[in-house]
Amino acid sequence: MIIYDQLIERLLSEDVPYGDITTEAMGIANVSGIMEFRARFDCILGGVSEAFAVLKKAGTEPEIIYNSGSKVKAGTLFMTAKGTAGQLHTGWKVAQNIMEYASGIATRTREIVDNAKKGNPAVVVACTRKSLPGAKTICMNAVEAGGAVPHRLGLSETFLMFENHSVFFEKESDAYAALEKACSKLPEKKTAVEADSLDAALRAAKAGAGNIQFDKVKPETLKEWIKLIKAEYPHIIIAAAGGVNASNAEEYALTGIDVAVTSSVYWGKPADIEVVMRPL
Amino acid sequence: MIIYDQLIERLLSEDVPYGDITTEAMGIANVSGIMEFRARFDCILGGVSEAFAVLKKAGTEPEIIYNSGSKVKAGTLFMTAKGTAGQLHTGWKVAQNIMEYASGIATRTREIVDNAKKGNPAVVVACTRKSLPGAKTICMNAVEAGGAVPHRLGLSETFLMFENHSVFFEKESDAYAALEKACSKLPEKKTAVEADSLDAALRAAKAGAGNIQFDKVKPETLKEWIKLIKAEYPHIIIAAAGGVNASNAEEYALTGIDVAVTSSVYWGKPADIEVVMRPL
Amino acid sequence: MIIYDQLIERLLSEDVPYGDITTEAMGIANVSGIMEFRARFDCILGGVSEAFAVLKKAGTEPEIIYNSGSKVKAGTLFMTAKGTAGQLHTGWKVAQNIMEYASGIATRTREIVDNAKKGNPAVVVACTRKSLPGAKTICMNAVEAGGAVPHRLGLSETFLMFENHSVFFEKESDAYAALEKACSKLPEKKTAVEADSLDAALRAAKAGAGNIQFDKVKPETLKEWIKLIKAEYPHIIIAAAGGVNASNAEEYALTGIDVAVTSSVYWGKPADIEVVMRPL
Amino acid sequence: MIIYDQLIERLLSEDVPYGDITTEAMGIANVSGIMEFRARFDCILGGVSEAFAVLKKAGTEPEIIYNSGSKVKAGTLFMTAKGTAGQLHTGWKVAQNIMEYASGIATRTREIVDNAKKGNPAVVVACTRKSLPGAKTICMNAVEAGGAVPHRLGLSETFLMFENHSVFFEKESDAYAALEKACSKLPEKKTAVEADSLDAALRAAKAGAGNIQFDKVKPETLKEWIKLIKAEYPHIIIAAAGGVNASNAEEYALTGIDVAVTSSVYWGKPADIEVVMRPL
Amino acid sequence: MIIYDQLIERLLSEDVPYGDITTEAMGIANVSGIMEFRARFDCILGGVSEAFAVLKKAGTEPEIIYNSGSKVKAGTLFMTAKGTAGQLHTGWKVAQNIMEYASGIATRTREIVDNAKKGNPAVVVACTRKSLPGAKTICMNAVEAGGAVPHRLGLSETFLMFENHSVFFEKESDAYAALEKACSKLPEKKTAVEADSLDAALRAAKAGAGNIQFDKVKPETLKEWIKLIKAEYPHIIIAAAGGVNASNAEEYALTGIDVAVTSSVYWGKPADIEVVMRPL
Amino acid sequence: MIIYDQLIERLLSEDVPYGDITTEAMGIANVSGIMEFRARFDCILGGVSEAFAVLKKAGTEPEIIYNSGSKVKAGTLFMTAKGTAGQLHTGWKVAQNIMEYASGIATRTREIVDNAKKGNPAVVVACTRKSLPGAKTICMNAVEAGGAVPHRLGLSETFLMFENHSVFFEKESDAYAALEKACSKLPEKKTAVEADSLDAALRAAKAGAGNIQFDKVKPETLKEWIKLIKAEYPHIIIAAAGGVNASNAEEYALTGIDVAVTSSVYWGKPADIEVVMRPL
Repeated sequence: MIIYDQLIERLLSEDVPYGDITTEAMGIANVSGIMEFRARFDCILGGVSEAFAVLKKAGTEPEIIYNSGSKVKAGTLFMTAKGTAGQLHTGWKVAQNIMEYASGIATRTREIVDNAKKGNPAVVVACTRKSLPGAKTICMNAVEAGGAVPHRLGLSETFLMFENHSVFFEKESDAYAALEKACSKLPEKKTAVEADSLDAALRAAKAGAGNIQFDKVKPETLKEWIKLIKAEYPHIIIAAAGGVNASNAEEYALTGIDVAVTSSVYWGKPADIEVVMRPL
Repeated sequence: MIIYDQLIERLLSEDVPYGDITTEAMGIANVSGIMEFRARFDCILGGVSEAFAVLKKAGTEPEIIYNSGSKVKAGTLFMTAKGTAGQLHTGWKVAQNIMEYASGIATRTREIVDNAKKGNPAVVVACTRKSLPGAKTICMNAVEAGGAVPHRLGLSETFLMFENHSVFFEKESDAYAALEKACSKLPEKKTAVEADSLDAALRAAKAGAGNIQFDKVKPETLKEWIKLIKAEYPHIIIAAAGGVNASNAEEYALTGIDVAVTSSVYWGKPADIEVVMRPL
Repeated sequence: MIIYDQLIERLLSEDVPYGDITTEAMGIANVSGIMEFRARFDCILGGVSEAFAVLKKAGTEPEIIYNSGSKVKAGTLFMTAKGTAGQLHTGWKVAQNIMEYASGIATRTREIVDNAKKGNPAVVVACTRKSLPGAKTICMNAVEAGGAVPHRLGLSETFLMFENHSVFFEKESDAYAALEKACSKLPEKKTAVEADSLDAALRAAKAGAGNIQFDKVKPETLKEWIKLIKAEYPHIIIAAAGGVNASNAEEYALTGIDVAVTSSVYWGKPADIEVVMRPL
Repeated sequence: MIIYDQLIERLLSEDVPYGDITTEAMGIANVSGIMEFRARFDCILGGVSEAFAVLKKAGTEPEIIYNSGSKVKAGTLFMTAKGTAGQLHTGWKVAQNIMEYASGIATRTREIVDNAKKGNPAVVVACTRKSLPGAKTICMNAVEAGGAVPHRLGLSETFLMFENHSVFFEKESDAYAALEKACSKLPEKKTAVEADSLDAALRAAKAGAGNIQFDKVKPETLKEWIKLIKAEYPHIIIAAAGGVNASNAEEYALTGIDVAVTSSVYWGKPADIEVVMRPL
Repeated sequence: MIIYDQLIERLLSEDVPYGDITTEAMGIANVSGIMEFRARFDCILGGVSEAFAVLKKAGTEPEIIYNSGSKVKAGTLFMTAKGTAGQLHTGWKVAQNIMEYASGIATRTREIVDNAKKGNPAVVVACTRKSLPGAKTICMNAVEAGGAVPHRLGLSETFLMFENHSVFFEKESDAYAALEKACSKLPEKKTAVEADSLDAALRAAKAGAGNIQFDKVKPETLKEWIKLIKAEYPHIIIAAAGGVNASNAEEYALTGIDVAVTSSVYWGKPADIEVVMRPL
Repeated sequence: MIIYDQLIERLLSEDVPYGDITTEAMGIANVSGIMEFRARFDCILGGVSEAFAVLKKAGTEPEIIYNSGSKVKAGTLFMTAKGTAGQLHTGWKVAQNIMEYASGIATRTREIVDNAKKGNPAVVVACTRKSLPGAKTICMNAVEAGGAVPHRLGLSETFLMFENHSVFFEKESDAYAALEKACSKLPEKKTAVEADSLDAALRAAKAGAGNIQFDKVKPETLKEWIKLIKAEYPHIIIAAAGGVNASNAEEYALTGIDVAVTSSVYWGKPADIEVVMRPL
């Protein structure tokens, strides 16, 4: 994980383009103090390195007690920062906000991962690229903190064929012929195909797909299909996507899928973080 | 509202740094088609201008049927884009993702606004700066599409005194003296003070605060306090913050507040948007 | 105040995109030395933190003796930097130029502030957004160093109605009705209206304006009008703009205005700074 | 001249990061209108192409009647823009501000150029790199509009030896030896040396300098020296710098200098431009 | 393929930060003309879309006759641009330089691809990320124009284990255990392992590697090894890297490899392009 | 030489937008180690400062043993970096790739410089702006490391008249009249003119050109012409361009040219650098 200054400056300057007028007008900008970050609820921390960089850029001296990926209890002090009131206020909300969103994502990710592993310890949870617009790095790091992996980072590095590709062919058979060609052109990648029927899956597998991603297929159906597909294509990867979440992750894991694909980790309430300052 | 290319290029290049290998490998990059965007559920649209700009940059010719702020029924076709399959796929997910997040925010905002107005048609809903990190413009536009206003854009343009400011003074009276001075230094702004007690509010009002922002005070208590405060300071603005949401907005509005401050609009499921392509 | 690297790199790379060919060709790039900055005239320093950041980025070790906002006598040594001749020359002119412009602004600001305070110690000087294009941060910091405040940072965070808004209404009464609505939509802001007559001011005040900004009204007239307006609207803020400068600031302050708005601080000769290097 | 979007977006987004709340709140954002730019005083226009780009980016349809470099009378309409009130207000001040600063620079430049040419039609006016920080392109274009040329764009493309270089040599003769070497290393450039005495100039010329830049030497003295230098070094270029301005440009031109170097064009009041909007 | 303005502005502004002084000083900046681009030698064109964008940004009206990927004969006119001499000169060299480098890469790529296909029509040529620093997009597009695919875009989207990873394990068996775990964590990717012996390859295959990349193994040896590996692991992908070039591509292709990995396409003489202007 | 973070972040983030998945998945991201850079062949080092900055940004502690410009033997250890395996792998290839390209350029530059100096120790080698697109700083630094100078950095700071300028004049005499005017407008620059005949050179010289750049003229012809030109214009600079390379540099130097202009240094194989890691 590498945190780029460019991102940090962008986030900070959006919030504080010209300084903090409140601490200035109150006449406390140069008073020394400490700021403490505590989890308000049990959670998996996320965004801690990013917040550290924000606080550094704001001029404070931050210290990390628990880093991203740590499971902390409500009330746990996990980060502090020392500096003037002006510096602390400059960094406060941006740091807090990143960590609240990222910890929310990490916590929801971990829950899905834990539930999925109950069904099958070998299953992998992969989070989609439907991450918060403008916060891709933060989200990818939070996903990793939660124990999942990114599904695909974008269009330039993974092959994933959708219905929105097949429609451009006159005949279905043309689409599969094109898929077969595509697979042979990209030998270093596991080419993926979205399917919603057993037949579609088998045809994709036959054409050379390395990964079948079932969209919105119920667990009980999936279980049947996977047996049939793996019998014929033992090395193929099967992923379930569309509606996978914490409540059904275990059930999906039990179907025999290799990968549970989900966007749901990005959505929901940020993890509440208490921020308290004191003079030093 | 102005959409900057810099933002659009950043969002698009994060997802498609070097082109879409799937349409390339499938050999359909140059086939002409149309892409249609439909709401899957009733919602208030958001992010439409931003998505338009993304689709333009991707090389397509987009057309807006319903713009941000429109209330649309499930199934409504609200935008189309024409182009090659390569161009359509390049813009697809980024455009969709922005609109899903923004429409989610706009829809939740509108719900709070509508509920608050039931309690008091004059009440204003203001959304905080705890917006998605990196998506400030998109969020502010979505808030406006939903009928609310931004609470404060950042630290450089509004005065808002918190407990985290007062702690830097030895005595409470010093803090209020500083507040009084600050108010006189910033005559062009309505200086705001966060309070959690009637006493704190009255002292802030006496010091010249133009805006009292009550944090996590229950509606019934708030009602009492507002009466007492407004009796003495009829021009003062009262805002309620901390836990205001769609379910209690009406009740809060009935307390006599001028402003309901909320972050809850940013959190929750994005509005689902169906994207279908067809050859042309 | 926070100085962003992005600004510093932009300013420095504009001047030194690929290194300093003079020190290179002279063969002294690696000789150690010290560079000293002295005020050539009495002035209020500005831009010192920005120059510090420039000198740091150029590779030198700068040291600040007097910071922005300090009143220094002609000849005062206020900053030094140690480094190789190559580093010193790389940072020299960019650092000097920022400080000369900013100190000019700070000095002119302080003069207006001092003169205005002679008329009325409570008056606030606010500097407009007609700052040097591309140097907003530097200008805002210089204004603060001079003892004034920014008037408005831009269009997104303050409401200020001009004649150029009213012309879009068919009848004057429609404009005031719209103003009234606007004020109620933005309760957290002190809405401002530019006026050039008593009647316009009173109508704006009646519509809910929190701030009347008189444009190019003579002090003696202003004095009369303010009395009449404040009698009816004691909480309203009155600002004078258009032609306020060091020579008339006291006279304007005596009229009873709360705020003197000026752009004149940005214009004029930069404060001359002598820069001398020596080998070490 | 080429105007980069990056610059235009930076200037515009500094002023309007999230839209114009005044036209929004007044409910006129979508009303169509026209905006007219007129010179308030006789001036040389500057910044017109840059303002055009700003107005375009703001969504309006601008039209140029007189471009940068044109000499216009007070009251002349030189540019218009059509668009919605929202678009017009978005672009207004940024466009106006660029043109006011740039026209001020162009006008002062032209005055110096005209005066210098009275003394000697062949003399060239060169403006230094002490331009407004962050506005280098705008300033260079304004200088050109005024009829002068840039002196040096920065450290990477011109050789200019100052006292601050010589101090790094133990003996003066070492400095001149280094200069001689430097000149032979940079045959494609006219190497320049700042001098304040005849002796220094002659030694620099002997070492191979192609350009002697006299700093703060009085015209009558300069005249004598130039005769002596040119007698020996007929191809050498002589520049006068330090205190050259409109009032003494003619006198300096009469001394026989080839180039008058000045920073004074950047300093002074921007050219006043009237901006009026009307509905359409 | 999508061309970002940000890249185009960066390349153009590096070369032309403030306009072209030659056409300005010659007084021809506004004369209309046409510029023609012709291949000096037979080549595969590359960079044409990028050059088109550069020429557009420079203000000209470019027209593409043959696009990237086209095989053209020496002397072929493949692009023109109309505009003023100022605009044409602004875009000339940057456009030409991009196309010369990119066409050089595309031509060398095509040669390797053609030779490799002689050995085995199914073999895929993959070009490494050792592309010209700062020109990744241009290089990736040129590689595609030449008929190859990118090998890996970077560290964030492909798994490739090197000796420089194994050294961090105490025992070799620990490294393979870690590899096995890694493969199961990344089911959606074809994990790759660099090997230089048959034993290493077999152990990696056993651990789950989807792709064995042999480094600097001679064709005759490779042929033997591939037979043995594919016998046991028929689905595994075998790549040859390290010294693959146009002269040995056919021989490598005959070994049974699936992928020929090369960096050599980036190195060598750019394809010469003749640029001629004429007035119109 | 100054290295801008913006460049370093751009190069690094292109390769590692979200972290290195290989070290992560292998579980070694936090193991400490050292990375050593050794030249594989005798070469002149280039890009070392840039690589240092990359490695620093990646989080490692780099140390330079031999800097850019050093002549090193094959096998020489010239740089190390300490850090975690995650940090080392993050910086590895980007640092190596910059140094390989830059050292290749520096080495080829030194060879031309050395050969040219054999012919004439006073001759200067100037490298054109046909540098790798996007790597201008790196290339200019490498050229300097090799002992040459940049020819022209771009269009905004040097005057160089080509045939592509002359064609815009109706008569040849008009072009020379324009050239004469241009020379007098730019007294601080040595105006250059590309020529391919003695006559053209003499006419340019007569018009005031300070620099004649002969394009693709054979050494023996050049020698004759130079004698004739210098007889009449002893101060004029003569440059040879078009096909100058290591094999003919000495011969060209013997013709009496002042400058040998070449692009060939940018083209060719990067200098091979071995990178080995070890745990610490």
